Amino acid sequence: MTDTADYPSDDFYPEPTQPSGWLTDEDLAVVRAQLPLVYVDAVPVRVDDSGDVISVGLLLRVNTQGVMTRALVSGRVMYHERLRDALLRHIEKDLGPVALPQVPPSPQPFTVAEYFPTPGITAFHDPRQHAVSLAYVVPVTGDCRPQQNALDLAWLTPEEACADDVQAEMMNGQGMLLKQAMAHVGRLP
Amino acid sequence: MTDTADYPSDDFYPEPTQPSGWLTDEDLAVVRAQLPLVYVDAVPVRVDDSGDVISVGLLLRVNTQGVMTRALVSGRVMYHERLRDALLRHIEKDLGPVALPQVPPSPQPFTVAEYFPTPGITAFHDPRQHAVSLAYVVPVTGDCRPQQNALDLAWLTPEEACADDVQAEMMNGQGMLLKQAMAHVGRLP
Amino acid sequence: MTDTADYPSDDFYPEPTQPSGWLTDEDLAVVRAQLPLVYVDAVPVRVDDSGDVISVGLLLRVNTQGVMTRALVSGRVMYHERLRDALLRHIEKDLGPVALPQVPPSPQPFTVAEYFPTPGITAFHDPRQHAVSLAYVVPVTGDCRPQQNALDLAWLTPEEACADDVQAEMMNGQGMLLKQAMAHVGRLP
Amino acid sequence: MTDTADYPSDDFYPEPTQPSGWLTDEDLAVVRAQLPLVYVDAVPVRVDDSGDVISVGLLLRVNTQGVMTRALVSGRVMYHERLRDALLRHIEKDLGPVALPQVPPSPQPFTVAEYFPTPGITAFHDPRQHAVSLAYVVPVTGDCRPQQNALDLAWLTPEEACADDVQAEMMNGQGMLLKQAMAHVGRLP
Repeated sequence: MTDTADYPSDDFYPEPTQPSGWLTDEDLAVVRAQLPLVYVDAVPVRVDDSGDVISVGLLLRVNTQGVMTRALVSGRVMYHERLRDALLRHIEKDLGPVALPQVPPSPQPFTVAEYFPTPGITAFHDPRQHAVSLAYVVPVTGDCRPQQNALDLAWLTPEEACADDVQAEMMNGQGMLLKQAMAHVGRLP
Repeated sequence: MTDTADYPSDDFYPEPTQPSGWLTDEDLAVVRAQLPLVYVDAVPVRVDDSGDVISVGLLLRVNTQGVMTRALVSGRVMYHERLRDALLRHIEKDLGPVALPQVPPSPQPFTVAEYFPTPGITAFHDPRQHAVSLAYVVPVTGDCRPQQNALDLAWLTPEEACADDVQAEMMNGQGMLLKQAMAHVGRLP
Repeated sequence: MTDTADYPSDDFYPEPTQPSGWLTDEDLAVVRAQLPLVYVDAVPVRVDDSGDVISVGLLLRVNTQGVMTRALVSGRVMYHERLRDALLRHIEKDLGPVALPQVPPSPQPFTVAEYFPTPGITAFHDPRQHAVSLAYVVPVTGDCRPQQNALDLAWLTPEEACADDVQAEMMNGQGMLLKQAMAHVGRLP
Repeated sequence: MTDTADYPSDDFYPEPTQPSGWLTDEDLAVVRAQLPLVYVDAVPVRVDDSGDVISVGLLLRVNTQGVMTRALVSGRVMYHERLRDALLRHIEKDLGPVALPQVPPSPQPFTVAEYFPTPGITAFHDPRQHAVSLAYVVPVTGDCRPQQNALDLAWLTPEEACADDVQAEMMNGQGMLLKQAMAHVGRLP
């Protein structure tokens, strides 16, 4: 299904190898039609010495239709995986092994994004599945490099990240989630 | 499996009828060994005119071993169901149709309880499954009556609810979740 | 000082009588130049049965320059007054005695608005003082009537309340605070 | 007044020099009887690579009665000072200049502690004043050394910090605030 590539996620491209016990792609397809999946969304930020957000990291990808899209770090929580380990795994997968993320000490997310397969129920939409995603702002202090399927990682100011042109390049409501994150940190333009 | 009845949940007793499209018990058993499930936990409270918590509602049940247990309102989020609708459904299922719950306007939970099948990873444990449960304090203003499998619904003060004897009757870490809720509302004894 | 009337607050017009022990206007003026004051901001909302925000209540006032402004419920916390009592007092003062507000059970605000006398330090500005305001979304279920100095209380959808024309009528960064509230409840347009 | 020394704060011992524009001790005494003051409380923690709290830093002091007390980092927010700058200032004052605190990106506190001069209104009490304190969990990654009036800085596990003997050494409800912090990060014993 070619259009799945439109949607930034851990399933953007098939993962070549899976730890034993994880679902096969077929099993996952079946489950996706029957159960909400647990996801995490991370908004990677650079902060100054006082913790104030300076910039937001957005992944740049080209989908199978050749359209450029921007995305947050996002992905599924695996069986027997803690939320904070899922956050670390997806941040490493997308930003590389030396991003040095500061995962928040509390599991309380700043919001929960409910991605529905039907558009319009919430601000979030995912044609593949119903995903319930816990969203966190995660300061990163190390060297970040786009991995795998991403062309680039761009650091934008909160103002730039919330601007219409950038918002238009974000899919499935992630532009909204980014604005909610900026509202939470007091940096919504 | 007799011991499943120990664990207060929407699966405490088999549900007689399921809307079409929901998982069969067999399918659910398979999925439970492979994916984290999305849950909600509600801490039902009575508040005074200023919103201050006066008492906490706990369900009293007897499990198949004849042991008395106390529980919060808790249950699975279904496919294509919003979190707030899952909260309403489980509150109605456990407290009756005229409990008049005030579901919070924000989806931000006060915490996320990660129930692992392996004890000791977090404070929460569920031998049946890995559940990620979004926890909310929900004021109820109407008439609450225990439904289905519950013997009673007891309204305890925060002090009583956090006391050792009550905590000992709560399973799977729900006693901890209750204390986290009381800490959140400023009423931890 | 004529321009104080621009700024919606408990000091919009001099309060005729003060409980003993409260500051005189003169004393308050001195303190205002030396200490941050504690404020609360309430975003009054109507919610549906599932707690989802349907509309936001904004007060309409005309300032001394004849300009129409819109405002949230906002005001000072008095000596020896609990935050939840300050919320109730200001809601009653602005929306009348039968608004039936549901003050949240937790003291955790959705954000803290730091109003500085110098513009540009945060999104919030108050030329009179440095105020640290704890902000809450407060569902109201009763009959709301504008009191005192307000011409009207308008119920707007989240979309309308965040629109540029309404935002332009809000002073001191309260438009931003309203957008942060809508982001928090998942209703930012 | 000898007993003020019982209460861990920025006023534990008179501060020798004040930036111009700050209140004199006399002025502050007058204001304290008339207005709530804005405070911040910081719970300094060590976290592991996944952000999970490993230990809590408590300051050890001896008061004028020769009684040993333990305290969080706590202090007043000054006129024209941002909350995050107040947090940094008090952490540096108590833990030294190379503690490397990670002040959270969001101004949303995990709770608000309302210290009343009258005991029993909330869990928090301060005989000197009415203080409204915004409380944050702050990971510190650098070298922490007790400053000024503190004898020691002890790093305790969450279990140790919440134990009765340690709680008994904390004044004014700060033991409760510590437990609320541990509840918030999922580490209440």
